[in-house]
Amino acid sequence: MVDLIEKKRNGSALTQEEIKFMIQGYTNDEIPDYQMSAFSMAVFFRDMTSDERAALTMAMVESGDQIDLSGIEGVKVDKHSTGGVGDTTTLVLAPLVASLGVPVAKMSGRGLGHTGGTIDKLEAVPGFHVEITNEEFIDLVNKNKVAVVGQSGNLTPADKKLYGLRDVTATVESIPLIASSIMSKKIASGADAIVLDVKTGSGAFMKDLKDAEELAHAMVDIGNSVGRNTMAVISDMNQPLGFAVGNALEVREAIDTLRGNGPKDLEELCLTLGSYMVYLANKAESVQAAREMLKESISNGKALETFKTFISSQGGDATVVDNPEQLPSASFVIDVPAPKSGTVESIVANEIGTAAMLLGAGRATKESEIDLAVGLVLKKKIGDSVEQGEPIVEIHSNQKDNKEVIDKIQQAFSITPNPVQAPTLIYKEVTGE
Amino acid sequence: MVDLIEKKRNGSALTQEEIKFMIQGYTNDEIPDYQMSAFSMAVFFRDMTSDERAALTMAMVESGDQIDLSGIEGVKVDKHSTGGVGDTTTLVLAPLVASLGVPVAKMSGRGLGHTGGTIDKLEAVPGFHVEITNEEFIDLVNKNKVAVVGQSGNLTPADKKLYGLRDVTATVESIPLIASSIMSKKIASGADAIVLDVKTGSGAFMKDLKDAEELAHAMVDIGNSVGRNTMAVISDMNQPLGFAVGNALEVREAIDTLRGNGPKDLEELCLTLGSYMVYLANKAESVQAAREMLKESISNGKALETFKTFISSQGGDATVVDNPEQLPSASFVIDVPAPKSGTVESIVANEIGTAAMLLGAGRATKESEIDLAVGLVLKKKIGDSVEQGEPIVEIHSNQKDNKEVIDKIQQAFSITPNPVQAPTLIYKEVTGE
Repeated sequence: MVDLIEKKRNGSALTQEEIKFMIQGYTNDEIPDYQMSAFSMAVFFRDMTSDERAALTMAMVESGDQIDLSGIEGVKVDKHSTGGVGDTTTLVLAPLVASLGVPVAKMSGRGLGHTGGTIDKLEAVPGFHVEITNEEFIDLVNKNKVAVVGQSGNLTPADKKLYGLRDVTATVESIPLIASSIMSKKIASGADAIVLDVKTGSGAFMKDLKDAEELAHAMVDIGNSVGRNTMAVISDMNQPLGFAVGNALEVREAIDTLRGNGPKDLEELCLTLGSYMVYLANKAESVQAAREMLKESISNGKALETFKTFISSQGGDATVVDNPEQLPSASFVIDVPAPKSGTVESIVANEIGTAAMLLGAGRATKESEIDLAVGLVLKKKIGDSVEQGEPIVEIHSNQKDNKEVIDKIQQAFSITPNPVQAPTLIYKEVTGE
Repeated sequence: MVDLIEKKRNGSALTQEEIKFMIQGYTNDEIPDYQMSAFSMAVFFRDMTSDERAALTMAMVESGDQIDLSGIEGVKVDKHSTGGVGDTTTLVLAPLVASLGVPVAKMSGRGLGHTGGTIDKLEAVPGFHVEITNEEFIDLVNKNKVAVVGQSGNLTPADKKLYGLRDVTATVESIPLIASSIMSKKIASGADAIVLDVKTGSGAFMKDLKDAEELAHAMVDIGNSVGRNTMAVISDMNQPLGFAVGNALEVREAIDTLRGNGPKDLEELCLTLGSYMVYLANKAESVQAAREMLKESISNGKALETFKTFISSQGGDATVVDNPEQLPSASFVIDVPAPKSGTVESIVANEIGTAAMLLGAGRATKESEIDLAVGLVLKKKIGDSVEQGEPIVEIHSNQKDNKEVIDKIQQAFSITPNPVQAPTLIYKEVTGE
């Protein structure tokens, strides 16, 4: 292992066998943390070649269980977002692309964050549950083209261990290590093709567009070189996506979007990501054709119908779709007034997310209980003009005292007397071609 | 600590307090190996400023015991060599500079290597021992200006721990880390001033002159910035120094040199290093004057007299100086013949060292027993012409079968039909001025 660290340190590329030896040894505790952290730091400075990145990804995939989705007909396309605030895309995309016959076999976790994960959000629908066997899961996907199940099995243990180490050794910010970490998880989950939503901006891990582009290219290259067709979209996270931040609130927003009445940015991003998913699943001749098909599916009600079937097949009460007031609702709905007049110049997405967490919408620790009803609905976004006292955000709270949340939200908004242009939503599409 | 790793990774300099925090934490096992190895790798790529190097050195000095030599009158000058084969300089220098009133308070270990350490070598003199108390040690230095004692106390534990880690994480080859490691040990040992012999060439750790120069400058800068006058000489290690490699054999060679009959290269290096030591101890007005004084001390017998006093004060039989045949001697003395005629082009110093070890002159593990009598005496050095069958090396062995040793020696010598120039002995002197 010392020789491998030295090889990387001196700028040479490791062979596939060397990388496999290293990742296997690390997974089995035969290679100690202190060697792996020195190696990671050397990678930070020396980077990795395309071959090394692909080998690292596959070595991590092979370090644990791999989900077998071969019982599902068709090309299984998975979508991954690098994370932001108020990202309701999965709730919309799953039924939307399934309505065109694309199999969506979603494995999801609960995780920590500003709001719950996809499973938590869906559990806002009374009766909905993910306690189904793998067989039922596969049957449901074959029948309805969409199902969600909790993550099971020991996926990519090497990645889990390495990520924990990188977190405490200042080696997180390395493109080859980030890219192989994300891609290994998707591949181990059984994806045949992958669509990536790489967020950039103040609310994203990748603050700079340049870094986001580099990461997107790195992941697309890995995917394509290990036989998984991969495409990426670089989208804006300088403000929360859509309006809703919170579990039941996002379900409601997803229903609106599937009905064609959602926030324009959320709809646009879903159409873009969705058209890639449909195209990669060979259900359309071109990305443009896929987009038209998705729009059609929204306008003719097929997308919403697929959502209803999906919900009821997993025990959920599908009548909430037409009667969203049946979703959990908070005791207090409070408007946050604009502290002054002008145009919204920026909204610090992470502060909005933290405000939602303060209300109880997310988990700070694994043991935290989520309040599915609470959250925020943005009334103004960047570029919107606002009068002093006019609501900028609507708080859905189950607590009486919301002073801290209101302060946080008001501080997250900058209002300027000058005109402001709304940010670009989609900066770039990376197809690897 | 993560923040400090990140700071270094991003190319910023750490403050003195940050470095102290880190080294203290690492010594106390509060900072784990995996963070320290990532930090070391970041240093490999980002280097350290002069202030950081000085702070790291002093933090390591303060991590353990520090020897108090304040009871010794005068400026305590210590010499350090970065290591080579057949380096008899300490045996010569200690009495030589002491004969001019420079206090030489030598703390030495046994260690691993091709031959024993200074203590092992001196123990070839019947009766000589280093089991003296610290008080006796200080008294002896005040009285005779020279004494040797075994290393005691817990010196620079941070350096010991860090060096062990660097060895298994490919972070040894970093100038700031090497320089602070060496300097911290010298300073903790109580040196007021330091003379460094940085070896370069095929038999040295620093193969390239450029690297050796960088290391020499780094150490001289550290010493001078922490209040220890420091000078360095960069000397050749493309072949063993002097002729003898082995414990009793080197004592004999040291006696010859103190008498003015030693190998020219060993004498020249001792005069150079010695003149710096005398100058830094304020016993001469200039380095050149110091050199003249040293030559005088050899020619008038004072140097040899000081050696005798030194030996007998620590229980040794000083009559060996005039009767070196009383030193331990080997049962077999065998000539190694030149395999062909020509001029010696190169002598792989490490192979010569390994040959001496095969005879039993050094320790492979801490438990190994050293045979003080055995070793090698070179009969030819680079640039010497040689006839086929003429002895190139004399083996002093206590074993009958020396085939492996003879083969190794013959392979270590390259003989060419072309003329060859003897290598430069002293490449550079680094005074920090």
